[in-house]
Amino acid sequence: MRKHKVAVLGATGAVGQKFIRLLEGHPFFEVAEVVASERSAGKNYREATTWLEETPLPKTVSRLELKTTDAKLQSEICFSALPGGEAGPVERALAKQGKKVFTNARDLRMATDVPLVIAEVNGDHLRLVKKQRRDNKSDGYVVANGNCTAIVLSMALKPLLDEFGLRQCHVVTMQALSGAGYPGVPSLDITDNLVPYIGGEEDKVESEPLKFLGRLGKNKIELARFRIGATCTRVAVIEGHTEAVSVKLQKDADAKDILAAWRSFRGIPEVRRLPSAPKQPIIVRKEQDRPQPRRDRAAGDFMSVTVGRLRPDPLLGWKFLVTGSNTVRGAAGGSILNAELAAAMDLL
Amino acid sequence: MRKHKVAVLGATGAVGQKFIRLLEGHPFFEVAEVVASERSAGKNYREATTWLEETPLPKTVSRLELKTTDAKLQSEICFSALPGGEAGPVERALAKQGKKVFTNARDLRMATDVPLVIAEVNGDHLRLVKKQRRDNKSDGYVVANGNCTAIVLSMALKPLLDEFGLRQCHVVTMQALSGAGYPGVPSLDITDNLVPYIGGEEDKVESEPLKFLGRLGKNKIELARFRIGATCTRVAVIEGHTEAVSVKLQKDADAKDILAAWRSFRGIPEVRRLPSAPKQPIIVRKEQDRPQPRRDRAAGDFMSVTVGRLRPDPLLGWKFLVTGSNTVRGAAGGSILNAELAAAMDLL
Amino acid sequence: MRKHKVAVLGATGAVGQKFIRLLEGHPFFEVAEVVASERSAGKNYREATTWLEETPLPKTVSRLELKTTDAKLQSEICFSALPGGEAGPVERALAKQGKKVFTNARDLRMATDVPLVIAEVNGDHLRLVKKQRRDNKSDGYVVANGNCTAIVLSMALKPLLDEFGLRQCHVVTMQALSGAGYPGVPSLDITDNLVPYIGGEEDKVESEPLKFLGRLGKNKIELARFRIGATCTRVAVIEGHTEAVSVKLQKDADAKDILAAWRSFRGIPEVRRLPSAPKQPIIVRKEQDRPQPRRDRAAGDFMSVTVGRLRPDPLLGWKFLVTGSNTVRGAAGGSILNAELAAAMDLL
Amino acid sequence: MRKHKVAVLGATGAVGQKFIRLLEGHPFFEVAEVVASERSAGKNYREATTWLEETPLPKTVSRLELKTTDAKLQSEICFSALPGGEAGPVERALAKQGKKVFTNARDLRMATDVPLVIAEVNGDHLRLVKKQRRDNKSDGYVVANGNCTAIVLSMALKPLLDEFGLRQCHVVTMQALSGAGYPGVPSLDITDNLVPYIGGEEDKVESEPLKFLGRLGKNKIELARFRIGATCTRVAVIEGHTEAVSVKLQKDADAKDILAAWRSFRGIPEVRRLPSAPKQPIIVRKEQDRPQPRRDRAAGDFMSVTVGRLRPDPLLGWKFLVTGSNTVRGAAGGSILNAELAAAMDLL
Repeated sequence: MRKHKVAVLGATGAVGQKFIRLLEGHPFFEVAEVVASERSAGKNYREATTWLEETPLPKTVSRLELKTTDAKLQSEICFSALPGGEAGPVERALAKQGKKVFTNARDLRMATDVPLVIAEVNGDHLRLVKKQRRDNKSDGYVVANGNCTAIVLSMALKPLLDEFGLRQCHVVTMQALSGAGYPGVPSLDITDNLVPYIGGEEDKVESEPLKFLGRLGKNKIELARFRIGATCTRVAVIEGHTEAVSVKLQKDADAKDILAAWRSFRGIPEVRRLPSAPKQPIIVRKEQDRPQPRRDRAAGDFMSVTVGRLRPDPLLGWKFLVTGSNTVRGAAGGSILNAELAAAMDLL
Repeated sequence: MRKHKVAVLGATGAVGQKFIRLLEGHPFFEVAEVVASERSAGKNYREATTWLEETPLPKTVSRLELKTTDAKLQSEICFSALPGGEAGPVERALAKQGKKVFTNARDLRMATDVPLVIAEVNGDHLRLVKKQRRDNKSDGYVVANGNCTAIVLSMALKPLLDEFGLRQCHVVTMQALSGAGYPGVPSLDITDNLVPYIGGEEDKVESEPLKFLGRLGKNKIELARFRIGATCTRVAVIEGHTEAVSVKLQKDADAKDILAAWRSFRGIPEVRRLPSAPKQPIIVRKEQDRPQPRRDRAAGDFMSVTVGRLRPDPLLGWKFLVTGSNTVRGAAGGSILNAELAAAMDLL
Repeated sequence: MRKHKVAVLGATGAVGQKFIRLLEGHPFFEVAEVVASERSAGKNYREATTWLEETPLPKTVSRLELKTTDAKLQSEICFSALPGGEAGPVERALAKQGKKVFTNARDLRMATDVPLVIAEVNGDHLRLVKKQRRDNKSDGYVVANGNCTAIVLSMALKPLLDEFGLRQCHVVTMQALSGAGYPGVPSLDITDNLVPYIGGEEDKVESEPLKFLGRLGKNKIELARFRIGATCTRVAVIEGHTEAVSVKLQKDADAKDILAAWRSFRGIPEVRRLPSAPKQPIIVRKEQDRPQPRRDRAAGDFMSVTVGRLRPDPLLGWKFLVTGSNTVRGAAGGSILNAELAAAMDLL
Repeated sequence: MRKHKVAVLGATGAVGQKFIRLLEGHPFFEVAEVVASERSAGKNYREATTWLEETPLPKTVSRLELKTTDAKLQSEICFSALPGGEAGPVERALAKQGKKVFTNARDLRMATDVPLVIAEVNGDHLRLVKKQRRDNKSDGYVVANGNCTAIVLSMALKPLLDEFGLRQCHVVTMQALSGAGYPGVPSLDITDNLVPYIGGEEDKVESEPLKFLGRLGKNKIELARFRIGATCTRVAVIEGHTEAVSVKLQKDADAKDILAAWRSFRGIPEVRRLPSAPKQPIIVRKEQDRPQPRRDRAAGDFMSVTVGRLRPDPLLGWKFLVTGSNTVRGAAGGSILNAELAAAMDLL
């Protein structure tokens, strides 16, 4: 198979770098263009970037010259790590030009014609791009990836929704530093401390899962109907969001059933053999002190989420914890898996 | 006033040391005896102790010879930092001998004849010691202090219960390392990590507040009637437990009323001028990123709790965060304040 | 005594805030004016400042209106926390107008007519301001405070120089996060990590001690003559620089002599009863695992340095460690003590 | 090639676990026996072990039954992670029985007939085992691996010694938590802190490099002749020791020559294609803020050391920093590489 050439937008930031690292040696895609702000225009990637990844900067990318968002791109596929607030209009314009845009930005996530996708959870929502294609009068579209915390939560909730139905979900998060980008959280704010607030986060966690867990209707997603209450905090962990979740199910369930639902979850068939798909999207740990972000974030090459401590909740019925990688599963890796799925579904 | 001579039990451990530091120069009490396990017997306090406090070991205490729990004590008042599982029988025996025991240990907290007291919240429960005196045929009794997490929570809940009534409380905690004593949590477990489990903690947090917030009946405490669901985690913070709380109230309340209830809370009149009582037991922070353990734990000389981020909860009605010192307010300082209150109520 | 009204320059930054906190209730000085950049002009102090100190913002200061550096100041005394690179010309101009400027900025530290002072170490250098007064044709002058790391080191070296003479000094530092100001070091750079580089720091540590430890000559300081080699690193500690020091002395010394030299050091007589002077400038810890930044930084109200682990060094003769507060002793507190000494020496 | 069956001694501890993880799928060796203390005897490996590695416990090992050190072992090759103080006699006895013991324990490192080996640095010292074989009247012997800090240092020094000669070396270390094993350093000792003391470490760092860098003589190692002065501290880093090094060379050298010596270093020819040998034992980073433990420890699959910040030292001539993995390069990985080299040299 010839590889698709892709452009990475917002390529010099932390998420852009993650895209570039994850796309190194990818069987479907090859980074051909890197796009960043005016400030970097004309520099090559290495000059313009403070490389934060722990593996070396891929050589082929290091020499690429940075383009600006108004440049004419050659690549048909774009991975967008553009900043929220700026991304939306750029991504819409690219779609109009016929580009397939897989974005990690927040701007279009809740737009009615944009699928918000976790490949294993609601990969079928990708078909909503057909509406965009009609409206754009082009092959182009935007597919969104979702907030990292919402992704980890929605993966844990999906088998519960399918098997038992969901009425309520209460979640308190302990989120990693990498979720705030770089330079992000000052060390003086988080050493021997935690910060019980992340701007805009609780809104996303209370709304995005309803779209992930919704149903593909005619030309739009019908949101799932249950209620979520969220508190989001930041803790001194580099990578891996941890979430303390309580749920009220529609049907009675015992622990054995719930564990089985998680363990057997594989997502839609099309996703199963994709290069970035973990063998097991949800891993169940039996130890009473798991999941832990440092010890579980790398599960499934950072693409699985790990649940543990399932036990009765006196208020809602059941409670558990879930941990997952925020920068891979919850960001760049998730977008790449979405694009792989689009390839498998003949949407590229 | 002549000072009461007191004994500190379990004096060499982390909580024992905190008792000794807080009692230095205390206007009511003077450490005259230190008690520890067989292992230390005969040594003086300085030799037997790895002093963990950041202020120097008080000179008078450093020279005291360590006694064992079966020694005949001179002091009428005992502060107990004995280990859970061991404390109960020793404390009961001392009470029978006429000692007034203020304990931080878990063993007798839920015993029906033992008051479990936060001075400002339910100081009146101290009167339950009269039953113990009758049963013991002596002046002695045991008063318990409660689990640190439950104390911080109960302080925040008390004004809500009084003003609006409580139906449900959901709490997820992010607890400090000092709560596990010394050596406690290995650094390899908590650096770039969190541990979502603390043995026995969730049970205490789901039960003790109902006793703190209960009513003194005839010879026993009538437990408060609302339900609590708790998840307890450990984070890389030295001191100060933080709790994300959601509550369902009995009566409608708006934010202004709730904030006013917290701000005006002063506890029972007898407690107000006691040496360890903070001027304001509950401090409300308006900044959206507070309370934070490092920046708020020292409030009121580590005896106030700090609340913030009051906002509507889609599930239960209201949510907020509360932080308080686990080793002072939640342990030694709380016990000392209980003893001060007992003095003020003529129970010493 | 009537208090001197003082201005704090660079008042909204981390060091400026420390000045304001330390000057609260000061017996000699009273903050009457606060000066910051254009950006904040016209706002009151509370509005313009993200208050980082753990005690509340002093009320009187919170309401002061911020002035710019070109405003005409009423106060005769200025404490400067202006940024390096910007401070020098402003401070010189103020001195010309007759202001006594006690600066924490680096710009004028090595200027030949500016005394670089640690009160206990070389308080007599203050007399160099007479030259400035002549040159300025005014009462004004600038006194500099020194780099935090150099201050802590120079305090430990002073008694060694006086008693035994110094030939060489090798130092490797492990410096605190607060030394980089706020926001300063990103948490992603320092969690589970250290950074072995601090821009410009090694130069300062290799040069400033020679001026601190020099001799007041005619109209200038004769630098001490020994050589210093420094490596400076940043570690995940909030406050307190730790330095691993090896020294080659001119005279033979045994451990007992060295320890006695440190313990008996009190600095020049004029400094001893000043409000910010610690009773004992150098504290010797005998435990083999001290000094430690968290456990020793607060010694002498953050104004003492703590030494420990004195032992033979196979290369230079002796080695030891020293820890001291970088933001108080090494910054604002040191400048205030310098101003107190100037008052005691009738130089205000 | 048929794989050698090997036994891991001290298999349940942190270093033992590292051996087991690194030996999973090893082309030369296969773990056939696991040995631990009496306490675990009879249990299978999984039951007896708190698995600390972040990859899963290898299945074949998990079912092995634990033997005690006095059991008769089948395997001809032993990897020893026995505790210091206990290891020596056990390892000597095994050698007498004909076993080839590759130990990470400290007991026999400086024994005159035991080679202390870093494969690339002094792999030829392995030939000293012939003396042991004669003395033991068996094929067996003990080869030691060295202290983690001394290994990282000696690798950086080797090319300098070979090219320029060494007169003096001054080193201050900032060592990782994993160096203290598990549970090791209490989190209350190291959060917002550092500990400037590691028992016994400075002695090892001042002596072992002289053996690594010595010459194989007749039946013994002639120690290298230069002097080392060391200060060892512990910092809040999980893995990767960092060392600030100053050296006095015998010959003049300029920076270019030193960098070239490091970059071109490959070690003895026999080591170059061994499975655990890194392509480049010493990596030079040009960025001024490297090496950093978190960002450089994984270099060469945790088997390379990384140097940086080479610059003139006012006292000794040159200074630099070096970082390397303490648990792989400095412990289990180093021992495995030694055994691979023994295979290549026909000594197994």
